[in-house]
Amino acid sequence: MAANIQDTVILFGDSLTEGSWTHNGIGARLTNRYSRKWDVLNRGLSGYNTEWALPVLRQFLAKVPAQPLVPQVRLLVIWFGANDAVLPHSPQHVTIARFGENLRTMVRLVASPTSSHYAPDTKIVLITPPPVNTVQRGANLAGREPPLELDRTFERTREFAEEVGRVGQSEGVPVVDVWTPMWEAAGKEEKALEGYLYDGLHLNEAGYKIVWEALLATIRKNFAELDKDGMEYIFPHWSYFLDHSLDEFKATQWVCGGGAAAADA
Amino acid sequence: MAANIQDTVILFGDSLTEGSWTHNGIGARLTNRYSRKWDVLNRGLSGYNTEWALPVLRQFLAKVPAQPLVPQVRLLVIWFGANDAVLPHSPQHVTIARFGENLRTMVRLVASPTSSHYAPDTKIVLITPPPVNTVQRGANLAGREPPLELDRTFERTREFAEEVGRVGQSEGVPVVDVWTPMWEAAGKEEKALEGYLYDGLHLNEAGYKIVWEALLATIRKNFAELDKDGMEYIFPHWSYFLDHSLDEFKATQWVCGGGAAAADA
Repeated sequence: MAANIQDTVILFGDSLTEGSWTHNGIGARLTNRYSRKWDVLNRGLSGYNTEWALPVLRQFLAKVPAQPLVPQVRLLVIWFGANDAVLPHSPQHVTIARFGENLRTMVRLVASPTSSHYAPDTKIVLITPPPVNTVQRGANLAGREPPLELDRTFERTREFAEEVGRVGQSEGVPVVDVWTPMWEAAGKEEKALEGYLYDGLHLNEAGYKIVWEALLATIRKNFAELDKDGMEYIFPHWSYFLDHSLDEFKATQWVCGGGAAAADA
Repeated sequence: MAANIQDTVILFGDSLTEGSWTHNGIGARLTNRYSRKWDVLNRGLSGYNTEWALPVLRQFLAKVPAQPLVPQVRLLVIWFGANDAVLPHSPQHVTIARFGENLRTMVRLVASPTSSHYAPDTKIVLITPPPVNTVQRGANLAGREPPLELDRTFERTREFAEEVGRVGQSEGVPVVDVWTPMWEAAGKEEKALEGYLYDGLHLNEAGYKIVWEALLATIRKNFAELDKDGMEYIFPHWSYFLDHSLDEFKATQWVCGGGAAAADA
């Protein structure tokens, strides 16, 4: 029974997305940044690769006929690769070629005029996986009960990050490269990545800070209309009441664009 | 175009709510806690009192006929008082009696069978304002350009916190008392509240931690069905794929209850 007041930003990815409302991550930061403007939804799926996530995307994005009845997606952030890049002994394993194909399918599901889910006003951003710290990850897995083998290599995750860049380029979608600035912040030393990853794979606050800065720069550079400074609140700043009556306020319907009012008949 | 996949939790209040996705606040924590289950929406309105906020509630909650078309609100957290309690020279000022009446109207908007917005399955929790630190607040206001007079008293905010308790009692709605544990944590010394408030009024991480612990205890005590440990994910844990095929996954419609599928016709 939440009426459709605000359009949305959706963060779609694996555990790096799902956990991004902790450690002052990008989910928490975007929610705060777009407060009173857009709702930010967590569609992170811990452990998922692109193969399993693609059918999820088809379900949580509305098809064209239903779009006027639900909040618009103004920004869709797609962030995979950390699980796809596992070694072949894991069921999460996906080949690089298939990973790129799945990312392309995700983008086209929204951006292709022939798609059942075509939404030309939805902006898309891809994020690369961060580098993996196999020293830390190996120690973490070896310490489990029972101990587990190392499931990722530094090099393979790097290749998946590069593949995200290629998909972005060929599809005309901006890519947030978090791999490069994090690797450089660690002085290009794998062990030093522990300053940004709490278990060799998942980001701590310093790691999410790098992602946030790169994401914000990408949004500002590519989508000026998504910069919150140019956006008005849905419900006005409280100083509105200094020169407007409560009756005038009550008589106004404060909703986002995008046909959102349709469902509140 | 976000299909209605997950029901919602709504945080409704003033700047203490709007800012609660920073400082590891209750918004960020609830979003993380309910990830893959419910969406947590920020309906915090910095500077608003209950007089101005009440018409907002009427707009963002769906009326009865529209409820089957939109996500259900499983939990509505109402947190006001910090602005209502300002002194009469401010336009934000509301009398205690009117504050209590507004809170009651908010609760009944959802809970009364005769209400246009009646939603019997929505659980409601009220939160009290925290204590104010007039030493810190006074210094903050005096340092502005131009300098402003102190706009709150310790005692008046305490009375508003007590009024929230009375409303909860008379309406049969659980109240999260954050005033008392924060006051006790400060050793009942106003100046020591600076350990929990960054400007005498707004919460820092230690302050939000007290609110979080009290909120979580209240949810667990009163609404066992809202405890995430008893809830299933909407989309399953990735280990699902160890013994289910991708085709089986694709053929399943993964949505919350609550008629949410209606809008994705």
